[in-house]
Amino acid sequence: METDLSNMIPLYAGSSQKYDTVCIFGTGDFGRSLGCKMMQCGYSVVFGSRNPQASSLLPKGAEVLSHREAAQKASIIILAIHRDHYEFLTGLTDVLEGKVLVDVSNNLKINQYPESNAEFLAELIPKAEVVKAFNTVSAWALQSGTLDASRQVFICGNDHKSKEMVVDIVRALGLTPLDQGTLLASKEVENYPLQLFPMWRLPMYIATGLTVCIFLYCLLTDVIYTYVSDGRDISFRIAISIPNKVFPIVSLILLGLVYLPGLIASILQLYRGTKYSRFPNWLDHWMLCRKQLGLVALAFAFLHVLYTLIIPTRYYVRWHRGNSIINQIKKNETSPFETKSAWRTDSYMALGMLGFLFYVILGITSLPSVSNVVNWREFRFVQSKLGYLTLLLCTGHTLIFGWNKFLDVSRYRWYLPLPYMLSLVIPCIVLVIKFVLIMPCVDKTITQIRQGWERNPKSAKQSTFKNGKIAV
Amino acid sequence: METDLSNMIPLYAGSSQKYDTVCIFGTGDFGRSLGCKMMQCGYSVVFGSRNPQASSLLPKGAEVLSHREAAQKASIIILAIHRDHYEFLTGLTDVLEGKVLVDVSNNLKINQYPESNAEFLAELIPKAEVVKAFNTVSAWALQSGTLDASRQVFICGNDHKSKEMVVDIVRALGLTPLDQGTLLASKEVENYPLQLFPMWRLPMYIATGLTVCIFLYCLLTDVIYTYVSDGRDISFRIAISIPNKVFPIVSLILLGLVYLPGLIASILQLYRGTKYSRFPNWLDHWMLCRKQLGLVALAFAFLHVLYTLIIPTRYYVRWHRGNSIINQIKKNETSPFETKSAWRTDSYMALGMLGFLFYVILGITSLPSVSNVVNWREFRFVQSKLGYLTLLLCTGHTLIFGWNKFLDVSRYRWYLPLPYMLSLVIPCIVLVIKFVLIMPCVDKTITQIRQGWERNPKSAKQSTFKNGKIAV
Amino acid sequence: METDLSNMIPLYAGSSQKYDTVCIFGTGDFGRSLGCKMMQCGYSVVFGSRNPQASSLLPKGAEVLSHREAAQKASIIILAIHRDHYEFLTGLTDVLEGKVLVDVSNNLKINQYPESNAEFLAELIPKAEVVKAFNTVSAWALQSGTLDASRQVFICGNDHKSKEMVVDIVRALGLTPLDQGTLLASKEVENYPLQLFPMWRLPMYIATGLTVCIFLYCLLTDVIYTYVSDGRDISFRIAISIPNKVFPIVSLILLGLVYLPGLIASILQLYRGTKYSRFPNWLDHWMLCRKQLGLVALAFAFLHVLYTLIIPTRYYVRWHRGNSIINQIKKNETSPFETKSAWRTDSYMALGMLGFLFYVILGITSLPSVSNVVNWREFRFVQSKLGYLTLLLCTGHTLIFGWNKFLDVSRYRWYLPLPYMLSLVIPCIVLVIKFVLIMPCVDKTITQIRQGWERNPKSAKQSTFKNGKIAV
Ligand SMILES: Cc1cc2nc3c(=O)[nH]c(=O)nc-3n(C[C@H](O)[C@H](O)[C@H](O)COP(=O)(O)OP(=O)(O)OC[C@H]3O[C@@H](n4cnc5c(N)ncnc54)[C@H](O)[C@@H]3O)c2cc1C
Ligand SMILES: Cc1cc2nc3c(=O)[nH]c(=O)nc-3n(C[C@H](O)[C@H](O)[C@H](O)COP(=O)(O)OP(=O)(O)OC[C@H]3O[C@@H](n4cnc5c(N)ncnc54)[C@H](O)[C@@H]3O)c2cc1C
Ligand SMILES: Cc1cc2nc3c(=O)[nH]c(=O)nc-3n(C[C@H](O)[C@H](O)[C@H](O)COP(=O)(O)OP(=O)(O)OC[C@H]3O[C@@H](n4cnc5c(N)ncnc54)[C@H](O)[C@@H]3O)c2cc1C
Repeated sequence: METDLSNMIPLYAGSSQKYDTVCIFGTGDFGRSLGCKMMQCGYSVVFGSRNPQASSLLPKGAEVLSHREAAQKASIIILAIHRDHYEFLTGLTDVLEGKVLVDVSNNLKINQYPESNAEFLAELIPKAEVVKAFNTVSAWALQSGTLDASRQVFICGNDHKSKEMVVDIVRALGLTPLDQGTLLASKEVENYPLQLFPMWRLPMYIATGLTVCIFLYCLLTDVIYTYVSDGRDISFRIAISIPNKVFPIVSLILLGLVYLPGLIASILQLYRGTKYSRFPNWLDHWMLCRKQLGLVALAFAFLHVLYTLIIPTRYYVRWHRGNSIINQIKKNETSPFETKSAWRTDSYMALGMLGFLFYVILGITSLPSVSNVVNWREFRFVQSKLGYLTLLLCTGHTLIFGWNKFLDVSRYRWYLPLPYMLSLVIPCIVLVIKFVLIMPCVDKTITQIRQGWERNPKSAKQSTFKNGKIAV
Repeated sequence: METDLSNMIPLYAGSSQKYDTVCIFGTGDFGRSLGCKMMQCGYSVVFGSRNPQASSLLPKGAEVLSHREAAQKASIIILAIHRDHYEFLTGLTDVLEGKVLVDVSNNLKINQYPESNAEFLAELIPKAEVVKAFNTVSAWALQSGTLDASRQVFICGNDHKSKEMVVDIVRALGLTPLDQGTLLASKEVENYPLQLFPMWRLPMYIATGLTVCIFLYCLLTDVIYTYVSDGRDISFRIAISIPNKVFPIVSLILLGLVYLPGLIASILQLYRGTKYSRFPNWLDHWMLCRKQLGLVALAFAFLHVLYTLIIPTRYYVRWHRGNSIINQIKKNETSPFETKSAWRTDSYMALGMLGFLFYVILGITSLPSVSNVVNWREFRFVQSKLGYLTLLLCTGHTLIFGWNKFLDVSRYRWYLPLPYMLSLVIPCIVLVIKFVLIMPCVDKTITQIRQGWERNPKSAKQSTFKNGKIAV
Repeated sequence: METDLSNMIPLYAGSSQKYDTVCIFGTGDFGRSLGCKMMQCGYSVVFGSRNPQASSLLPKGAEVLSHREAAQKASIIILAIHRDHYEFLTGLTDVLEGKVLVDVSNNLKINQYPESNAEFLAELIPKAEVVKAFNTVSAWALQSGTLDASRQVFICGNDHKSKEMVVDIVRALGLTPLDQGTLLASKEVENYPLQLFPMWRLPMYIATGLTVCIFLYCLLTDVIYTYVSDGRDISFRIAISIPNKVFPIVSLILLGLVYLPGLIASILQLYRGTKYSRFPNWLDHWMLCRKQLGLVALAFAFLHVLYTLIIPTRYYVRWHRGNSIINQIKKNETSPFETKSAWRTDSYMALGMLGFLFYVILGITSLPSVSNVVNWREFRFVQSKLGYLTLLLCTGHTLIFGWNKFLDVSRYRWYLPLPYMLSLVIPCIVLVIKFVLIMPCVDKTITQIRQGWERNPKSAKQSTFKNGKIAV
């Protein structure tokens, strides 16, 4: 639908100008696409080119002049040229005075230059007002109308008026302007389109690392052990059985890691007796990527559910069940029904499925459009209360699944702990600490600290505020 | 990603003021956090304090003055103090004249005071322009940059200009302003952050009540009955078997309850011959929480699907199946294949799964970001047409599941109806009424009424419009 | 939550006017609803009516005057009347001069009139400024506060100032204004609320067509063939077994069709040596509905997963398994365990489930609120890289599922290919072409072309830009 409507702005056909004239320096791909789109939206566009006669492929109706002439025709100049060519602008300082220069440039690498392109430009032409914008928009998307992502245009600049002018253009093009503050933000804005899921990196590394380790561990204690001790080849378990051990273990560990940093932070605050001192950087970073950690954990839980539900359809399982029945008949003995086993297996399955429901609810609440319509108290309720409930259910699921297996020596292979035991360490620690922290006496102190109270007010200095970000 | 960018507004370092000076009364947690954030975004901040010398912990670069001096320095004053301390402001009436007072206060309980804090303030200092804002934002979120929820700042006030000034600040801080009208809205705005899913309350109560009742009912007719009559202990059924009876029943009843109020409304409109008279309050409330009712129903359906798919993995089921095969062999008889049974079971499963697909589609469309990009006609198509289709499929699923069980006297325990029959009452009533209402003759009248036509135009009075909300 | 807050704007009670006076022509349903809502938000409303005395049902406090008198009282006039009645406005030309006329009308059919209602109005009263707005808002939703969809108000008009005035009203009503450009866009804006999922039409047709064809094909080679050759009635397979062949086949074909147009586009660009020439219309349209195609494919995959997981619960399957065990015992032979079979079945299941995970991730990323917070590079990464990975996994899943069945002549019925083979054609073609296109030499040329390079720059004319949309 959206695509449809963004597409519908027609070629402006009226004779009178509805919008101002805009000048674009550079007749490359992006300059042309932007110019074409702006003309469709009713702007009149003048291109500035080194070689006005030779420029082909420009949208019909656009004027092409020399840089100097073009610049004189408009109060806004969009620079669709590479940073490397900015130097020539110094020759135009006189005509650029007081104009709004819109820097749309992108680099090839994150932090390629010491200062951002926009700041570089602002130093070059100090008398012009530089605004950074449009660098997050794809030329291809502008042309083809398939703007699914990157409808948002980040804008920053030191002059309020100039920013407003650019904001108006952005709105007229059907895009969403997002004011990012002064030019100091331009470095971040320039890095933004080069990023590839930066907040997901750490969680993905952790998840991958865990998956590999636990996979190898299970391979060792399962396939390799059986081969070495019995000489049997059960390598086919690599496809489903072993992954279905790895997924829940990784998922539970990750879920524990989601709730651990909050506890460490609380303990640190309790210990320091104040919240006005920075956390160590690793803790800060860890806390900021909990959402991503949680979602990766959810993906693993999702796989675990699928891999579990497919079990009875598997050839191996069907063969095995048939075989055990045949054996029972041959030996003419029937295994009696054990109510305890029924209780145990049904309970851990029930806990697991309830846990998965809350897992999914956590995931849904983390969708931006959902978290936007709940208030802070509601969001914390879901993420913190339901989150701990999820952790509790999933830990319970694993504990009951394990039951008394850990007592059974025959199950230990090469004296190694059973795989499921690995997954329980962190969640159990988290739950125990949480249990201690919500004891009324401890909880009261934490709440006080978080409301700004301090044990030794002297020790905390104003300077903690310096970095613009304080301990949370 | 979002978090990342909201975070990136750097400490403003330029020498010239890009934005105005803002005064903040109160050096508590919220005042400090807000002040720090505003300084990062380029504002210059003056704190007003009872005891300017003693104030520590303030962001570096912020001035701290007495209230009177601070107020004189800015045209906007943010009051980060408790309502209980507002009285002292009366002593500053002269300097506050014509200033914009931003009330950011929150109460501890919903409707704690007869009038809202902002209205109270407006009465106290009638010569200042009071704007309510920022009360939905968490101080912690402001500092830590983890603004996942509550990016939205609700703003209300009687003066357009003053609101605009606050809106500008909100935007500069990277938050989303939402104009809520005049100060009359301030009560609602103050209650908002104290709410915990108000629209979900009724649906949750209904769902919990139904779950408990039907659980007990199933417990009685299943576990307890078997124990009493046969002396067998099948208590293990409490973990999965019984919940998997309760979930679909509750889900279907809730789904029926979603579509019932629309029908009652239609009948009422038909009976009254007009749409211009208020519905009873209970109907109004019921209609407004249909979305939440529907989503709770979806959660139950989701659990039903999980609990059903896990069935063949369960110990009890595996044991039972093995046992029945062994018995067949011992008795040397094989149960013949019944095509009718195959048809029946496969059909109800197929209906159920199709119903679940549409259920999920309904759920996806109710995500705010999805419902925002469809037009009214499309939204009604999905919610109303596909909604009834879902109800039809799920009712069919249950009917075919039940089949002729209701004829089989041996299944009735203590002469009580079978659990599944309970779930069919409301959906069947809904479907029958709907069927009557879409008959051309009836449908035509309803459509006319909804387009504003009235049977007895005289009877409807202007006064129906009084409450600002009319029958729908 | 949203509903709640949008609802809370109270009846404006203050004595002084906070907002301007607005005039509404027409006292029909929409006029009344809009007027009532506007008064609640602090506007003073004057209705213009043919018969001011007779107008009943108007919101209390609203004035009703003759058209002429009403028009003189306000600078904005909202025309809540049908296009057919516009003619009478010509009699008011003198009072309408310089006023902003807001056209809120809708038609009954798409493209009912040659020009849009708003353009018609603009021609009729050339001296007034016409703005199109509010036509996407439902009167019912305005009254009842259940604005889940259609919170967005599309606005278009030739005069910037007039649009701004309307935008202010829209904001004050708690709705979201969306500027759509000049009046030329009004045709699209008027068609918008009449649309019913236009982008979904083609994908739905394709999916329905494929489903029907493949269903009949499976019916023929399965149920009918068995009946004709063996005389056995296996019609019960129509409920689950056959759909569960149809769903994955359709899903995989659709997934192939999602990635095919991108390849055709690349080949066309390679062949033409330029990207500056339009694609054929069918290709354009195909490319624009890939999202919808993909989501339909996901729905089919979802059904396939459900239908597969339910398999072991089915009566037929349980009977069949029991029977085969009984037969083994009777014949006193046990089928040996085949590691190869275990590997094969486990592998295709594992591939399928991994494929489904990525499928779901693709689906989640296509939610508007998610695609809005990722940058262009990230969106392409998910949609293009993960998309091809999904296709690869699903194709692999099908290939291993098929294994060497295609060698087994006894499986061919009436010499027709096996159903699963049908689904492999397009995906395999897509994967092979993609493989060729990502070979370094080919890839380099494509990248160059997409960056604006041309093989024969002469051949491309400016005129390619004419239609406002160029090859992508
Ligand atoms: C599937 C899934 C999805 C997830 N999605 C998200 C998501 O979208 N967004 C997200 O953030 N997390 C997400 N998470 C991660 C996790 O649920 C949250 O981070 C959760 O809030 C952590 O809970 P906590 O109690 O440890 O929080 P904590 O950070 O410990 O906070 C606990 C409470 O203390 C308060 N608090 C903490 N420190 C301070 C302080 N210094 N001053 C004042 N108050 C303070 C907080 O307001 C909160 O009320 C997700 C997890 C999963 C499994
Ligand atoms: C999983 C799930 C999710 C759901 N999500 C949502 C959601 O996000 N939002 C939501 O609202 N509901 C939601 N629902 C509830 C339900 O689907 C809708 O409320 C649905 O619209 C009810 O359909 P109805 O035909 O009974 O509506 P009705 O209210 O009876 O409306 C039927 C039609 O009549 C029209 N109409 C009704 N009264 C009037 C009148 N007085 N004047 C003019 N026209 C009138 C309406 O425009 C509509 O076209 C959800 C349900 C489920 C199961
Ligand atoms: C479940 C599901 C959900 C989906 N949701 C969406 C969705 O929300 N939105 C959506 O669009 N698609 C969606 N799709 C469809 C599909 O995933 C995307 O269209 C996908 O991007 C197609 O990949 P491609 O490599 O063929 O793209 P192509 O269009 O071939 O593009 C490949 C790359 O080339 C670049 N490129 C192409 N042409 C040019 C050019 N002329 N100039 C410069 N660069 C060019 C593009 O930027 C891209 O990087 C969905 C599919 C599925 C299965």
